[in-house]
Amino acid sequence: MNNEKKIPYKIYLEENEMPTQYYNVRADMKKKPAPMLNPATLQPVTEADLTPVFCEELVKQELDNDTPYFDIPQEIQDFYKMYRPSPLVRAYCLEEKLQTPAKIYYKFEGNNTSGSHKLNSAITQAYYAKKQGLKGVTTETGAGQWGTALSMACAYLGLDCNVYMVKVSYEQKPFRREVMRTYGANVTASPSNTTEIGKKILAEHPGTTGSLGCAISEAVEAALSKDGYRYVLGSVLSQVVLHQSVIGLEAKAAMDKYGISPDIIIGCAGGGSNLGGLISPFMGEKLRGEKDYRFIAVEPASCPSLTRGKYAYDFCDTGKVTPMAKMYTLGSGFIPSPNHAGGLRYHGMSPILSELYDQGMMEARSYEQTEVFKAASDFARVEGILPAPESSHAIKAAIDEALHCKETGEEKTILFGLTGTGYFDLKAYEQFNDGTMNDYVPTDEDLQIGFDSLPSVER
Amino acid sequence: MNNEKKIPYKIYLEENEMPTQYYNVRADMKKKPAPMLNPATLQPVTEADLTPVFCEELVKQELDNDTPYFDIPQEIQDFYKMYRPSPLVRAYCLEEKLQTPAKIYYKFEGNNTSGSHKLNSAITQAYYAKKQGLKGVTTETGAGQWGTALSMACAYLGLDCNVYMVKVSYEQKPFRREVMRTYGANVTASPSNTTEIGKKILAEHPGTTGSLGCAISEAVEAALSKDGYRYVLGSVLSQVVLHQSVIGLEAKAAMDKYGISPDIIIGCAGGGSNLGGLISPFMGEKLRGEKDYRFIAVEPASCPSLTRGKYAYDFCDTGKVTPMAKMYTLGSGFIPSPNHAGGLRYHGMSPILSELYDQGMMEARSYEQTEVFKAASDFARVEGILPAPESSHAIKAAIDEALHCKETGEEKTILFGLTGTGYFDLKAYEQFNDGTMNDYVPTDEDLQIGFDSLPSVER
Repeated sequence: MNNEKKIPYKIYLEENEMPTQYYNVRADMKKKPAPMLNPATLQPVTEADLTPVFCEELVKQELDNDTPYFDIPQEIQDFYKMYRPSPLVRAYCLEEKLQTPAKIYYKFEGNNTSGSHKLNSAITQAYYAKKQGLKGVTTETGAGQWGTALSMACAYLGLDCNVYMVKVSYEQKPFRREVMRTYGANVTASPSNTTEIGKKILAEHPGTTGSLGCAISEAVEAALSKDGYRYVLGSVLSQVVLHQSVIGLEAKAAMDKYGISPDIIIGCAGGGSNLGGLISPFMGEKLRGEKDYRFIAVEPASCPSLTRGKYAYDFCDTGKVTPMAKMYTLGSGFIPSPNHAGGLRYHGMSPILSELYDQGMMEARSYEQTEVFKAASDFARVEGILPAPESSHAIKAAIDEALHCKETGEEKTILFGLTGTGYFDLKAYEQFNDGTMNDYVPTDEDLQIGFDSLPSVER
Repeated sequence: MNNEKKIPYKIYLEENEMPTQYYNVRADMKKKPAPMLNPATLQPVTEADLTPVFCEELVKQELDNDTPYFDIPQEIQDFYKMYRPSPLVRAYCLEEKLQTPAKIYYKFEGNNTSGSHKLNSAITQAYYAKKQGLKGVTTETGAGQWGTALSMACAYLGLDCNVYMVKVSYEQKPFRREVMRTYGANVTASPSNTTEIGKKILAEHPGTTGSLGCAISEAVEAALSKDGYRYVLGSVLSQVVLHQSVIGLEAKAAMDKYGISPDIIIGCAGGGSNLGGLISPFMGEKLRGEKDYRFIAVEPASCPSLTRGKYAYDFCDTGKVTPMAKMYTLGSGFIPSPNHAGGLRYHGMSPILSELYDQGMMEARSYEQTEVFKAASDFARVEGILPAPESSHAIKAAIDEALHCKETGEEKTILFGLTGTGYFDLKAYEQFNDGTMNDYVPTDEDLQIGFDSLPSVER
């Protein structure tokens, strides 16, 4: 045990130190993320294009590249107080185990029933739906964290919640489904016969176990086909990064309070919501030239959108019903292999993060799942938290950086995002414990199938 | 929403406000709990009787009715900092939903991977085993919370951990088992062929799905038959109530800090560890005549040891290998019906709580499981935590008391223990959501079977 513990194991902000505004990192980007395009006209989407699908206030947030701060409504601040501030944890036990001179911190977002950071944006999106007088919302969920979060938010506000759950998760994670039902949500296995796109996909691929891209198509169609409903999405969109900035703002406030400044900031990256939110205020300082940080995005080798994808316009869904976004993508036709980090199995990446990566403001790396579970298991034993497979990608990178410090003797300060818990991922842990876990890395030929699905848009 | 929120939603103590000593409520009891008896001699057990089974330091704690405070070793204090202080939550959202003038607080112990308060005693027992130079420990687990907690503690300290898991749980909760394995524990379904008592029970009842009492017998035998091992137990024992006093001490410190004094303190009661720990410092004040509180123990109607049991000497296990304890009991031969609150399916009750109940210092009541799950579901929707079925018994009683305040207009302050999360109890929630949950209340004839198994000891 480290004897100098001036920094507590867990730093909790006081309620009056919690953020009251979201920070919009786009405001500090000189080169903005490329606009989404209307697939019919290939012109930048307008408010009018998006309001049939998304809530009005959220459309405004989505399209606003300039306003640096958005007030967090009092009702949302009150909801946050139920489960926030989340602790900023000094990983003394992990440091001790690694015998590293590095100082490791993690922002732990798993202390709520949805088990992840997703609730931060779910409540905001549900709030604006309620404020607009809607009856309910539709969405998709893969691993189930987003669907659970949205179910909780909707139950709290009395909104109807319809979740299209990727069929393979629906079947393999009945307990995830049951949590959503406990919160009153309607959960449908996707693809389903309840939508035209679902029927079409089922006709073409009768045995399919679904995909996130396909579930998005169904959820969007379901929102458009019912009065008083809109579609909400848990990642990728810029509004989600905006809401998730609460993670970074809290982390930064907690670190500032103790005079700590991170050298390296690490997060797992699926659609980019947690990483984008965690790094936002730090990236703002870097963009404004006030301070320098290293940012590392970590993705699974099985779904390597940043490390092996193309920076191009693409559809956000398989059915190609959504606007097109310029992002690092493997192509909406990419078929992700059955990696256990369901939350990272998405073909694209947040346009904000994609642009920052393209500008060289951020690094990216990928890991195979067995080494990720090894890191997860080691972490669990010393830090007492069973991490989600997604989050464990960040753990693996943090451990590697800390071990590098051990070699060089550098006392770097590492901050990583621990996005959630792995209570619903025990099937994966079982495979790891039994030594029967496989790694999947797509070949160049596998990737080409996805790239071939990219629309030909030059802008 | 309540507008007067001088009290934060969550009160976290600072690290330097955390307890550094356990409080032993027995020290303030004028009439002490009856001594455990050696079943061979029917004389009070001695240190020499117990040290073959339990760690030396823990035997001392078990037999000490007089020392009011025990120092918490620094290593345990450091471990606690990983997941403690646990939040004392003001249930503003629940109050709002109930429209009650009552003020409701709960001490939430579920924010660690074991998912419950059990870790508080697991680390202490593992610590003293390690300090004694032992190789490992054996134990039983029912619902799996204790086994998980002990696995975590042993992984942290590098001790071997052998868990006998009641067969029905082992089969129905493979994910619980997998968490324990992730923490390196050996998990055996009980009854098993690895012990003599297990073989005997299997021969007599080939189709049995096991019981906590039976798993205890196996774990004790396993500890006695191997060099360098001792048995540890997660509830019932007085040492466990001592360790769990950390819950009550933290709760009281947090309340004192804000000038809050509870009128009613509520906890679920299986073996009594969480309830005993929560109420200890408050009960101390009541015993010393300094202050009055109402204490309410809540148990399942299917396993009603306090409300329908007898206050008598009984064995703690089915195999009758343990010392006898005087407690409220349904008899070690009582066969609990398949209620989902596995952690409350124990035939006996902490001798400390039994004696306090017998002295009229505490009330008790029971609920059927469907009404408990209704309370759990209502609570989850407004407070954002999916509670364990065990904990939900306390929620139900707290809601009932708050609704009573609504009728009378009394602004009582209610404190209850929210011992853990229900992530591994989704099968039960599924039954509740589907409307297929059954209630079980033993008939007087059912109870008589258990009472017939009581040893005839008069003291």
